[in-house]
Amino acid sequence: MSPTTPDYSTLAWEVDEDGILVLRLDRPDQLNAFTVEMAEELVDAFHRAAADDDVRAVVVTGSGRAFCAGMDLSTGSDGSNVFGLDESQEPTLADLTDRLDAPEVHRGVRDTGGRVTLAIYDCPKPVIAAINGPAVGIGATMTLAMDLRLASDKARIGFVFGRIGVVPEACSTWFLPRIVGMSRALELVYAADILEAPAALEMGLVRSVHAPDDLLPAALELARRFTRHRSPVAIALARQMMYRNSAQPHPLEAHRIDSLAMFWTSVGDGKEGVASFLEKRDPSYAGKASELPPFYPWQEPAG
Amino acid sequence: MSPTTPDYSTLAWEVDEDGILVLRLDRPDQLNAFTVEMAEELVDAFHRAAADDDVRAVVVTGSGRAFCAGMDLSTGSDGSNVFGLDESQEPTLADLTDRLDAPEVHRGVRDTGGRVTLAIYDCPKPVIAAINGPAVGIGATMTLAMDLRLASDKARIGFVFGRIGVVPEACSTWFLPRIVGMSRALELVYAADILEAPAALEMGLVRSVHAPDDLLPAALELARRFTRHRSPVAIALARQMMYRNSAQPHPLEAHRIDSLAMFWTSVGDGKEGVASFLEKRDPSYAGKASELPPFYPWQEPAG
Amino acid sequence: MSPTTPDYSTLAWEVDEDGILVLRLDRPDQLNAFTVEMAEELVDAFHRAAADDDVRAVVVTGSGRAFCAGMDLSTGSDGSNVFGLDESQEPTLADLTDRLDAPEVHRGVRDTGGRVTLAIYDCPKPVIAAINGPAVGIGATMTLAMDLRLASDKARIGFVFGRIGVVPEACSTWFLPRIVGMSRALELVYAADILEAPAALEMGLVRSVHAPDDLLPAALELARRFTRHRSPVAIALARQMMYRNSAQPHPLEAHRIDSLAMFWTSVGDGKEGVASFLEKRDPSYAGKASELPPFYPWQEPAG
Repeated sequence: MSPTTPDYSTLAWEVDEDGILVLRLDRPDQLNAFTVEMAEELVDAFHRAAADDDVRAVVVTGSGRAFCAGMDLSTGSDGSNVFGLDESQEPTLADLTDRLDAPEVHRGVRDTGGRVTLAIYDCPKPVIAAINGPAVGIGATMTLAMDLRLASDKARIGFVFGRIGVVPEACSTWFLPRIVGMSRALELVYAADILEAPAALEMGLVRSVHAPDDLLPAALELARRFTRHRSPVAIALARQMMYRNSAQPHPLEAHRIDSLAMFWTSVGDGKEGVASFLEKRDPSYAGKASELPPFYPWQEPAG
Repeated sequence: MSPTTPDYSTLAWEVDEDGILVLRLDRPDQLNAFTVEMAEELVDAFHRAAADDDVRAVVVTGSGRAFCAGMDLSTGSDGSNVFGLDESQEPTLADLTDRLDAPEVHRGVRDTGGRVTLAIYDCPKPVIAAINGPAVGIGATMTLAMDLRLASDKARIGFVFGRIGVVPEACSTWFLPRIVGMSRALELVYAADILEAPAALEMGLVRSVHAPDDLLPAALELARRFTRHRSPVAIALARQMMYRNSAQPHPLEAHRIDSLAMFWTSVGDGKEGVASFLEKRDPSYAGKASELPPFYPWQEPAG
Repeated sequence: MSPTTPDYSTLAWEVDEDGILVLRLDRPDQLNAFTVEMAEELVDAFHRAAADDDVRAVVVTGSGRAFCAGMDLSTGSDGSNVFGLDESQEPTLADLTDRLDAPEVHRGVRDTGGRVTLAIYDCPKPVIAAINGPAVGIGATMTLAMDLRLASDKARIGFVFGRIGVVPEACSTWFLPRIVGMSRALELVYAADILEAPAALEMGLVRSVHAPDDLLPAALELARRFTRHRSPVAIALARQMMYRNSAQPHPLEAHRIDSLAMFWTSVGDGKEGVASFLEKRDPSYAGKASELPPFYPWQEPAG
């Protein structure tokens, strides 16, 4: 383990020799239920993974038999403090538009799950969910910001918010229709069912289903295929181009970014990439994901 | 029937004991062909359904053997008045931008089908199409703004606009690619074919295909699953979040709304939801879809 | 051949009696590898196809055994000039925002593949890719701006950019998630694999797979089905509505355009369309794709 291995209370961080970070939700006795502390640590972990050039890709899984059983509902028996909210707060859309990072807004009103998925969205490295067991509520929505979802046949996935009178969160309404289409997204949220792995596969929610012992190896192998002999800079830009460019109202906006990113990589790692291709040898890239070009990030709203 | 049951010429309105409104296109002798009057009544019906807390979900189907055979082409044998248009009108994009609700624009140029689908889009309740027979032209496009489409094996669905020299309408080019993807959407519109139910299922256009007698019961059962023991406020917000947040250029916009909506429901029906969950009993919600939070509607263009 | 048949070095242009333009990438000895000259000729060809009312639809295929083997990497053995770029250029996002057509930006920094796909995007006629063999790099991404992709069972499709240290281009990150969804789009780009035809079909990347000798006939038949007895104006508007309206943040924007386009076609070719339908005869349309209404193009960014 590297000297910079972070010491988290709710997560386990381990980077293998190929640079694949396995990030485990690590409260197995609570089925890895999500807490505000876990949210803070996840945000920190994705920022750290973004900045650490020894990390090439991230695989998120759960310790023990669950992936994440959802928000920890044990903090208040009357439910009043479950979401860390206080009725005396009266947030407005203007608070969230103008003062998103003001301490009282940040801590009091901003959706904690969304702070996690925005950190995943910003990550310049591939992120793969290895859903090893129940993934419910925020345990389900956090995986939507990950690029691919692999499931064990023990996985159970549920957008169960409707069952407790609240809305889906963590930017899930932004991600889910992009993954499964609008009609299935609405049905998943309305029905609030807990899907078994084959149903999730049928829905297009997960990429593939594996025997329990094969899940993590399959996720690691995919992460290796995505990063071995790859430029970290080209991967970082490509990931952000996919999410950001596709959401623009006209492809001309993609063209502007494509032009800059192709220029940047062509005079950078692309030289080595083409040379190694023509010389039929493995490439050796100098670029680092921690040193992205000055035009990154682009299309970033104020916030 | 409730005392407020509206008296429509072209529609039949019936709310069952579970709060499911069955809205029937009701011109069976004309195969429920669409008229300007039907458009006005559909807009009214969706506004009424939105405001009426006794309505929890809407199922739209057709009386008799058709769902809706499209625009009623019988009003002018030369076709001149079919769309209610007058060549002396010379609308511009500016008219539609600045004066969308000016009487002469509203009545004369605005696409009537689009007025219906915008009313469906704004509805704070699940909307399910039960396509019992031919659904052609506006009969097909109006269903795209509904959350899910169930089809009888007698259903025939066609985006046939190209066959009569006009364009698809009713915001169908906004909805259709979200449902079936861009390539299938283009093929459906270019080919202008009338699809049988299995082809529509294969295309992802309909969710499921049923024997004729099973169609309405299946749609009603789904509507009940979506609303029974559910907070009307959480459903209303979740529906609008799905359509509105997913169309934003950055997930941060979703995060702002998620934060407000999660706050609102957590200190509202979510308290009862969590309490009932922890106490293993059915919830009893106080929230009403007719009383949505002050931040709703959001991301609304001028118009 | 018409007197206006263009004389290209890298393309073959042939219009059949049904108005279907077969545009062949025509450097068979180089497996139709893409060059700056081919880019210029493709842009010209799509502009010409747009303006020429004798062209009703476009089918793009490759001469010989390949579709397009990607960027021609043979121009510089050290790779420095492969993309036509010069390290002394220092483009900025502002250059691409404010000076996209300034000669030094246009020639030096703008992604050539993107100039091609933007020309395809703007085309007012259906565009079908008939992928007859390897389609790699720009050979793959250029097809994403085409409405449908048909493949021979000899097709091999690869978004291989990651293998040479560069990013996907040609607005592919705008188009690809619209076709296959976000998760598959990311996997295709990360893995950078070369897919055989059945895998591309399974992914939703191609519409159908054909025996080699059946590919072009199938593409031509589809192009005929899309254009025979169709209004060129209605097709042109419908194509642009699909791409442009669906990318808008609210369906009201689609409604504005729908209203104008339905008005325009209803008092134009729609009159003949309805009349021919009621009279059970083939329509004879007067409208021309070269004469689109004054409100076209809409939602066009500065650039």
